[in-house]
Amino acid sequence: MKQQRILYIDPVGVEVVEEGLRFLTEQKQEGTELTLVTLPRGPEHLEYRYYEALVLVDILHLIKQAESKGFDAAVIGCFYDVGLQAAREVAERMAVIAPCEASTHIAATLGDKFSIIVGRRKWIPEMVENVVRYGMKERLASFKSVDLGVLEFHRDEDETARRFREVGQEAVERDGAEVLILGCTATYGFYRELQEELGVPVIDSMIAAFKTAEFAAELKNRLGWSHSKIGGYESPPPGEFSAWRLEEQYDFGDIKTWLQRAKKP
Amino acid sequence: MKQQRILYIDPVGVEVVEEGLRFLTEQKQEGTELTLVTLPRGPEHLEYRYYEALVLVDILHLIKQAESKGFDAAVIGCFYDVGLQAAREVAERMAVIAPCEASTHIAATLGDKFSIIVGRRKWIPEMVENVVRYGMKERLASFKSVDLGVLEFHRDEDETARRFREVGQEAVERDGAEVLILGCTATYGFYRELQEELGVPVIDSMIAAFKTAEFAAELKNRLGWSHSKIGGYESPPPGEFSAWRLEEQYDFGDIKTWLQRAKKP
Amino acid sequence: MKQQRILYIDPVGVEVVEEGLRFLTEQKQEGTELTLVTLPRGPEHLEYRYYEALVLVDILHLIKQAESKGFDAAVIGCFYDVGLQAAREVAERMAVIAPCEASTHIAATLGDKFSIIVGRRKWIPEMVENVVRYGMKERLASFKSVDLGVLEFHRDEDETARRFREVGQEAVERDGAEVLILGCTATYGFYRELQEELGVPVIDSMIAAFKTAEFAAELKNRLGWSHSKIGGYESPPPGEFSAWRLEEQYDFGDIKTWLQRAKKP
Amino acid sequence: MKQQRILYIDPVGVEVVEEGLRFLTEQKQEGTELTLVTLPRGPEHLEYRYYEALVLVDILHLIKQAESKGFDAAVIGCFYDVGLQAAREVAERMAVIAPCEASTHIAATLGDKFSIIVGRRKWIPEMVENVVRYGMKERLASFKSVDLGVLEFHRDEDETARRFREVGQEAVERDGAEVLILGCTATYGFYRELQEELGVPVIDSMIAAFKTAEFAAELKNRLGWSHSKIGGYESPPPGEFSAWRLEEQYDFGDIKTWLQRAKKP
Amino acid sequence: MKQQRILYIDPVGVEVVEEGLRFLTEQKQEGTELTLVTLPRGPEHLEYRYYEALVLVDILHLIKQAESKGFDAAVIGCFYDVGLQAAREVAERMAVIAPCEASTHIAATLGDKFSIIVGRRKWIPEMVENVVRYGMKERLASFKSVDLGVLEFHRDEDETARRFREVGQEAVERDGAEVLILGCTATYGFYRELQEELGVPVIDSMIAAFKTAEFAAELKNRLGWSHSKIGGYESPPPGEFSAWRLEEQYDFGDIKTWLQRAKKP
Amino acid sequence: MKQQRILYIDPVGVEVVEEGLRFLTEQKQEGTELTLVTLPRGPEHLEYRYYEALVLVDILHLIKQAESKGFDAAVIGCFYDVGLQAAREVAERMAVIAPCEASTHIAATLGDKFSIIVGRRKWIPEMVENVVRYGMKERLASFKSVDLGVLEFHRDEDETARRFREVGQEAVERDGAEVLILGCTATYGFYRELQEELGVPVIDSMIAAFKTAEFAAELKNRLGWSHSKIGGYESPPPGEFSAWRLEEQYDFGDIKTWLQRAKKP
Repeated sequence: MKQQRILYIDPVGVEVVEEGLRFLTEQKQEGTELTLVTLPRGPEHLEYRYYEALVLVDILHLIKQAESKGFDAAVIGCFYDVGLQAAREVAERMAVIAPCEASTHIAATLGDKFSIIVGRRKWIPEMVENVVRYGMKERLASFKSVDLGVLEFHRDEDETARRFREVGQEAVERDGAEVLILGCTATYGFYRELQEELGVPVIDSMIAAFKTAEFAAELKNRLGWSHSKIGGYESPPPGEFSAWRLEEQYDFGDIKTWLQRAKKP
Repeated sequence: MKQQRILYIDPVGVEVVEEGLRFLTEQKQEGTELTLVTLPRGPEHLEYRYYEALVLVDILHLIKQAESKGFDAAVIGCFYDVGLQAAREVAERMAVIAPCEASTHIAATLGDKFSIIVGRRKWIPEMVENVVRYGMKERLASFKSVDLGVLEFHRDEDETARRFREVGQEAVERDGAEVLILGCTATYGFYRELQEELGVPVIDSMIAAFKTAEFAAELKNRLGWSHSKIGGYESPPPGEFSAWRLEEQYDFGDIKTWLQRAKKP
Repeated sequence: MKQQRILYIDPVGVEVVEEGLRFLTEQKQEGTELTLVTLPRGPEHLEYRYYEALVLVDILHLIKQAESKGFDAAVIGCFYDVGLQAAREVAERMAVIAPCEASTHIAATLGDKFSIIVGRRKWIPEMVENVVRYGMKERLASFKSVDLGVLEFHRDEDETARRFREVGQEAVERDGAEVLILGCTATYGFYRELQEELGVPVIDSMIAAFKTAEFAAELKNRLGWSHSKIGGYESPPPGEFSAWRLEEQYDFGDIKTWLQRAKKP
Repeated sequence: MKQQRILYIDPVGVEVVEEGLRFLTEQKQEGTELTLVTLPRGPEHLEYRYYEALVLVDILHLIKQAESKGFDAAVIGCFYDVGLQAAREVAERMAVIAPCEASTHIAATLGDKFSIIVGRRKWIPEMVENVVRYGMKERLASFKSVDLGVLEFHRDEDETARRFREVGQEAVERDGAEVLILGCTATYGFYRELQEELGVPVIDSMIAAFKTAEFAAELKNRLGWSHSKIGGYESPPPGEFSAWRLEEQYDFGDIKTWLQRAKKP
Repeated sequence: MKQQRILYIDPVGVEVVEEGLRFLTEQKQEGTELTLVTLPRGPEHLEYRYYEALVLVDILHLIKQAESKGFDAAVIGCFYDVGLQAAREVAERMAVIAPCEASTHIAATLGDKFSIIVGRRKWIPEMVENVVRYGMKERLASFKSVDLGVLEFHRDEDETARRFREVGQEAVERDGAEVLILGCTATYGFYRELQEELGVPVIDSMIAAFKTAEFAAELKNRLGWSHSKIGGYESPPPGEFSAWRLEEQYDFGDIKTWLQRAKKP
Repeated sequence: MKQQRILYIDPVGVEVVEEGLRFLTEQKQEGTELTLVTLPRGPEHLEYRYYEALVLVDILHLIKQAESKGFDAAVIGCFYDVGLQAAREVAERMAVIAPCEASTHIAATLGDKFSIIVGRRKWIPEMVENVVRYGMKERLASFKSVDLGVLEFHRDEDETARRFREVGQEAVERDGAEVLILGCTATYGFYRELQEELGVPVIDSMIAAFKTAEFAAELKNRLGWSHSKIGGYESPPPGEFSAWRLEEQYDFGDIKTWLQRAKKP
């Protein structure tokens, strides 16, 4: 089978975290070529909708660029699944995947109910909206918050692990969860120990999205199953972009050549 | 009572349509000061999620600017309710209103079921998502499409009116609608005739949003009822914006001074 | 703009509570003429469905009388929204509003989830039914009961405020509420302090209904948006009432002339 | 086993229809004593919520009277299930049953989806509300209207049967109904022929309610399973009625002695 | 009225428990002939889906045999309602009833919300699925587990009763339950004391199913209301069974003559 | 990476259809070892729940046998997903996948709404139940039936294709489907042409299940994400099977050695 090329977008304006990259690379299939990029600009986390708004256009342009460079699938690596539907609208031949959708789909096949462990209460309403949209509301046992911001998960990893364990146990014993999801891609690396300690599957949402992207790429390449272009994911007509001179109106920054410079593992 | 100041944002990169402005102005309360702005840049319609993404940041900055200039409420004038939740997140003292939410709330008090008349099939999935989020799914009789783009509604107004009548009648007689909503703010001006012909209330979503904004402004001013800042609408902390030098990273265009130059009726 | 005339019906058989009247009057728009009536007969509270049944016909006749006297909107001032749909059926040109619908609509625009604070557990099932009918079930964080009957809220106001604070805090911290609703019109006067103490919007359902009635009256007068007469709110045909000699069969009491004698603020 | 006494209330102000009485009597169990009453006053049908309001208090008093006379169960014989929950609130030892709840419960055990055949479109929203409250929304294939008022079903019975057949067939073939319900107690007598012609069970809602009342009476007598008095069906406290002199305030008409004069089959 | 013949299947491979049989017999109508059978083989309880799978075919053959012997209704006596829909598919003239459906239908008429008391957490997901399918999810206050296996309920009946009381009280006071259901047919005998102690109806699911079977038998015999044979309950065509020589392929055991040997009370 | 071994069970008592086997084999990953088995006995199709019951135990034993032989995942190849949950209960280290769950999960990522094309109306209620359980009800545009039994799809393939095209087009144009699913594993081979003709993705449910099994196997092997053994998928305790001498009671047929004799591609 032909190689499949996957782009993992960590949609924040920071350097690529080498540890995260290694973490993903370990899990890739042999035939997969993985490229991980962060954005050339942007906030350092996306806890607020305002920050999501800032990075949204850059994500979409990255998606278009990846598509034109022959990528088979892209991951938008934030558990808010920021811009997932817009990305599927603009992509015409490439699969787009995001962590919340991927994780809840997997969790729903592993048990009856799952809980999602998040950093802060603030995140929950937007995530609930996604869980509902994905049809998984009846499978949701609870959201559990550990009261840590995105940038704090790796500050004191023992403390983070302790909090995950505490709320995870509560979710399993009190809320009826049979599976747990770590509801932030920045929580990579914690799932395996937690899984062993609690005796239930713990979904790392970063990996879940990446592996689902490999899966989606294969479905597209083999079977032609890609986003329907009739209805909600209809792409914008090519003429309007230039007729309205959108290129000139906005500063699209470095994003056009960004992929060339992206590090590969 | 003190004057209340309402900003109506027509979130596209075109000149203000004088006819639309007059249309709104006729419906304002005496104590209302209405400002209508379009955007300094952007596509001419928002039928695609990509176009919504392009204008989103400008909308949010306009919201912040309006808040700092003492506006009491703002309307995001697109039936996709683009960025409504993000706008409520960034606004700290100002109400933000959008047409789909406003129209469905009103329609739900006027009858049991309503239908929403849209331009094209493409629009429906995103709108359904909003209707579901607003809790109005059980009240939705149907979506009816007239197969016209946003920019076509006013090309041949007789033909547009004819199509509205045709699908409106179908909605009332076959789908059980008791109320109709015109699901695009660009369809201003058609509601009254349709309402008389079909004998059911027909909600103009542009007016519905504007009047709801006056209502929200009054609730905020009199009673202190404004967006909760605990939970999903928590605003971003002030420090991060400057710490991350976001101002320098992005071209925020003319939006900062845009309101000064906005026409007033 | 023409004056708008609002009738607020406190649907119990007691004297008008002057304090409640003053409370509403403070919140009215300049152009509003407010009339507050209680009923000429009836129980002193409506905690039971039996009591609702007793006052229902008098409410409907008051609605009809108000309509013929030129009122623009009426409020049925009980959080059970007693007879709301029947009143919309009989009213042919007047808007009818009720507190639970009005409060939940407002709350849903201010935050993601709200809790409703009630007096007694007995009230909850009927109110849940309404919340579901209004499409707001997904937005409901919880019902919280303070174990006080309708007539007890103003006996020891400090104690009442203390209990509201206690369950309100619980709702915000444990149940995820971002907004609170005081689920009884007899709890007027408590909202503002609670709002300041808890830092979330607290909806006074008496005011919410009254302000929504002003809003509905304006929509009706300006735009012709009033209850659809096709479908569920179709009014009874005029002939049957007299053909069946219903007037002679029932004692409709003093209700026919009741509005003349109603106190105005 | 002891005799069980069932009261069937036809809640309109007309003479008892002998044919309807015979129809029910044929279906009673040996041990059942059936009493059928109409009301001493009231409209001739209940198609409007206003008419329901008029008869509601008389129904509740009849329920209380029946309870004190030792009836085991009562049926409120209108497919709107008018006052069902209020009646269960006032009844302290007697089961109360109504046709829509009874019919949908039975239909749901006989097939996957059912359709409800009604007289007029006007009826549907109120009935849908009940179907939703009873949890049967997912089982509802469709409502079908034959465009006949309550008083017209027996005018030209051949024509009525023809219309039932027509919409019934449509329901089965196009809407996926596996069971049909005749959604008005005035349609007694049509079910059996329709059932044979269409080859699916057709529920006569008058009989469904009556037989369910026998069932409920037996459950109550044998097993003590009657309406829970904790929560929504808590009865009004005895003291308030007299303290508020409600008896003197209202004209409760002949209802107090009505049961004595009721015809028995 | 003709005698009605009810088969109660206790679908496990054990001897008939005389105490259970007496318990049911006490509750039967005079005109009912009750036959209780267990299976000729099988596990001693059905807590696992695997055990349900083992007994499923024997249950269906017993149903067919009962039908051919003139039974009017059969109960599948396990609160998982194992094979209920398959049994309704194969039965062509006989009603089939099961405890969870029967109990939730009854409970829903007695109060607003009910809780189901189960033995072990393991049972809950399968039962929730059934509660959802029966449309009763909104009525479900909670599941409460007493941490006892099916075979343990009668080991120390005082302890079992104590646990039922404890979780029952919690359900009523904390979860808002107005009615309780004992979610295992092996918990016969406990309902009445619990009901008296807690002051809310407590449904014994074994009796609930049996009495509902009598009810269903009567509806079928009098009114011809039996499982619809159009759609989901369409029976297999007679020819395939023999064409495929299924009889020879499987060991259907003693089930063919099992009913002859069944004990009658 | 280690080889992964997938068992595809075609759960009917017929010879392996070579064409179907080749069809699957073409789609496997290089590292996959595919084994396809049919059952040693059983009906030739599973359109009825009775037939599902007949094959259920053999499926479960095959699952156990496959697990002990080191398979990583198994597919139960029938769109009713027969025994999926029971199989996940008995499997302790192996993933179990089924077509309806797999297809709807994939379809939901490719578009907003999908339609499922089935053979006969009879199938729909059971499939709807599954779609609801999988959370995909809101995504379901419609079921479309082509009026063909399982064994008829390949009799006249042109006619079958014609019918698929006809109802597929209807689904896309009238019902709003953006994706189609062929709701029977026996419809292999038709998807690609249909997909090209209609311009929307068409999911072949046989392939969807098989590819999802590869995906699940990889997730299990790499990440330890397999069915949770806490809650609904808890496996039966090993002791009971032998204590109750279940082996001796039932004829488990040839299933124990069946895998040895299974053909490999």
